[in-house]
Amino acid sequence: MTNPMQAKQRPFRDHKAKHFLFETDTDGRVATITLNRPDKKNPLTFESYEELGDLFRSLTRASDVRVVVLTGAAGNFSSGGDVFDIIKPLTEMAMPDLLAFTRMTGELVRQMRACPQPIIAAVDGICAGAGAILAMASDYRVATPETKTAFLFTRVGLAGADMGACGILPRIIGQGRAAELLFTGRVMSAPEGHNWGFYNALHERDIVLAEAQKFARNLADGPWFAHAMTKKMLDQEWAMGIDQMIEAEAQAQAICMATGDFRRAFEAFAAKAKPAFEGN
Amino acid sequence: MTNPMQAKQRPFRDHKAKHFLFETDTDGRVATITLNRPDKKNPLTFESYEELGDLFRSLTRASDVRVVVLTGAAGNFSSGGDVFDIIKPLTEMAMPDLLAFTRMTGELVRQMRACPQPIIAAVDGICAGAGAILAMASDYRVATPETKTAFLFTRVGLAGADMGACGILPRIIGQGRAAELLFTGRVMSAPEGHNWGFYNALHERDIVLAEAQKFARNLADGPWFAHAMTKKMLDQEWAMGIDQMIEAEAQAQAICMATGDFRRAFEAFAAKAKPAFEGN
Amino acid sequence: MTNPMQAKQRPFRDHKAKHFLFETDTDGRVATITLNRPDKKNPLTFESYEELGDLFRSLTRASDVRVVVLTGAAGNFSSGGDVFDIIKPLTEMAMPDLLAFTRMTGELVRQMRACPQPIIAAVDGICAGAGAILAMASDYRVATPETKTAFLFTRVGLAGADMGACGILPRIIGQGRAAELLFTGRVMSAPEGHNWGFYNALHERDIVLAEAQKFARNLADGPWFAHAMTKKMLDQEWAMGIDQMIEAEAQAQAICMATGDFRRAFEAFAAKAKPAFEGN
Repeated sequence: MTNPMQAKQRPFRDHKAKHFLFETDTDGRVATITLNRPDKKNPLTFESYEELGDLFRSLTRASDVRVVVLTGAAGNFSSGGDVFDIIKPLTEMAMPDLLAFTRMTGELVRQMRACPQPIIAAVDGICAGAGAILAMASDYRVATPETKTAFLFTRVGLAGADMGACGILPRIIGQGRAAELLFTGRVMSAPEGHNWGFYNALHERDIVLAEAQKFARNLADGPWFAHAMTKKMLDQEWAMGIDQMIEAEAQAQAICMATGDFRRAFEAFAAKAKPAFEGN
Repeated sequence: MTNPMQAKQRPFRDHKAKHFLFETDTDGRVATITLNRPDKKNPLTFESYEELGDLFRSLTRASDVRVVVLTGAAGNFSSGGDVFDIIKPLTEMAMPDLLAFTRMTGELVRQMRACPQPIIAAVDGICAGAGAILAMASDYRVATPETKTAFLFTRVGLAGADMGACGILPRIIGQGRAAELLFTGRVMSAPEGHNWGFYNALHERDIVLAEAQKFARNLADGPWFAHAMTKKMLDQEWAMGIDQMIEAEAQAQAICMATGDFRRAFEAFAAKAKPAFEGN
Repeated sequence: MTNPMQAKQRPFRDHKAKHFLFETDTDGRVATITLNRPDKKNPLTFESYEELGDLFRSLTRASDVRVVVLTGAAGNFSSGGDVFDIIKPLTEMAMPDLLAFTRMTGELVRQMRACPQPIIAAVDGICAGAGAILAMASDYRVATPETKTAFLFTRVGLAGADMGACGILPRIIGQGRAAELLFTGRVMSAPEGHNWGFYNALHERDIVLAEAQKFARNLADGPWFAHAMTKKMLDQEWAMGIDQMIEAEAQAQAICMATGDFRRAFEAFAAKAKPAFEGN
């Protein structure tokens, strides 16, 4: 008998992206998204914002992809929204179109947070504007010592309030440091990013993507149903009181305890074997 | 005339615990709870979870205990829920029992946060799973350089969402570092724990408990009614907006200003004497 | 035709303060408030609390001031509420007056957060009690290596819950470090303050005010309408869930994109010129 919930799922192994690269491991468990317009340091465009948002939304139904790696081509992560391709048209738009645009970019962050797959950002070189937001909206971030990260919206006369930055960045690096970066648009160096907890680790250029993929692979071979619950609850409890958090986690963890993965993990432990997680 | 609210209070100096050690200073002001099953690195059991929760709940009415020190016997803090004593039975339970279990463990954290006494964790060696949660749920944490702290729920196929960890840990060490620890279950070394603000200080093994008790004693000899208000408000304001926090603290501090302890502290200051706080 | 909203504005260049110094740059864009009772290390008084709150409230309508620098005279920031001028009368007040006092001090923090101008604290020497709160309630903080910062309410028998400290401080330096400072009242050294993200930078005594004013000047010459939105949203999103933050920023940034400042910034970028922001 077909499980009607599983019947809605589909493999993403052969998915082709139009405005960036999308590749997976042979078993499809780890997908790598590469922003790929290296001549302009991988800017985001109206089209790539929308396609990225759609992709993260549809990954909710992936039968294979368990973890996503997000990176940029040729030594840069992303220069953010292009000044002539994005900023110029925005300066000429009426309010409804402006709001449609800011909602579309915000929707990308929302879908990155809503999809069950942990997102691992592998960052090098320029990581600016919306590029910095994509790193911020990921679950785990590695960078190179050369990475320059800047929330530079203020440099084009805008607020730091872009795609959730005024709410999310302070929770990662603290309210005082976040305020400085958002008011000034200055570069956060890679060592600062590491010391402040924005970057989880620094790796040299030639291995940073491989390290991110290795980290992703470890998560993908682990209890991915439970990982998705960890991700969900990290967001879900953002603005809860302590008592509400505790009840929310009592429910969330009871769900995980009812899975075969939990039983399989115990049995493997007892048998000194490696557990094989099935996501159910 | 008897004060009917004080009549409900009772001393804990002679309290005997069944599933761990409970001892106090001679005046009862500082209580030390020692997880004490050293052959298994002080795991938690169904019984000790419940007794700990009950104890913290009843400490609300202590006439003597003002600060609690929480530690483990023989060079380890706690290995968390035992794999065979706890995990195995859980893999065989139906949902209502699973939820009753996760609510019981969450209740322990809730009572640790709800009791008026600041809780000082003195941590050494293994501090894992529910053990790491007990440290996290304390108000002040010291450890030894050898301490290994791991939120290792993922290692048994579970989510990091356990007893409030997805909500509380990010507020202590930042969202990015918390996500890494909860997704991977990896050890946070003692220097990491100190640099990230999880541990307030590191001390050598032979003095870590004494340092925790000295810290506790200083609090216990201070304005403990006000300390309890500090603890309450640190939790109470967790998910408030800024205007609401400010009004909440206006009320909380006005209450403290109406106490004799406040007047006594001023009079002692004016007389260059040491104030004696009475908790009223 | 007069713009009725602008008609409500007035210049603060010639504003005279009674209980502290208020000075501006020649164009009025950067105002510097100096707590100025150096013989007692610039304590706050009933009068200065109230006048400061009123000033920050009225700065909302300033036609000139875009950034505020807050500092103290003669090598100290502020010793907080004076023990004999403030604490003593409080120990003799009835509850309604106590609450009126804590609401008045809280109102100062509320007006510092509510005014559109970013507030830059230049801190040296003693920064204690309500003085530490004023630093905490600022948007950007620089200090000298000699700065001693202490939330010392506990030393007079009070709670750390003063003017928002139990809610705001944990978001800046983490829940565990904030708890320690609020429970003990101990000094946070300048290096600690810098490492923990309370101070954004340390500068030597002879330049700390000039550095703060230089930082302020850069903000004042930038897109100040957008800066005010950044400040507003950093507070506004304090207790929102992630989806709500994203929608809130979509609206906030769309507003900024509808300004001439945004267009001017783009045009200046395209012309490789320096933009002149007009706040509209």
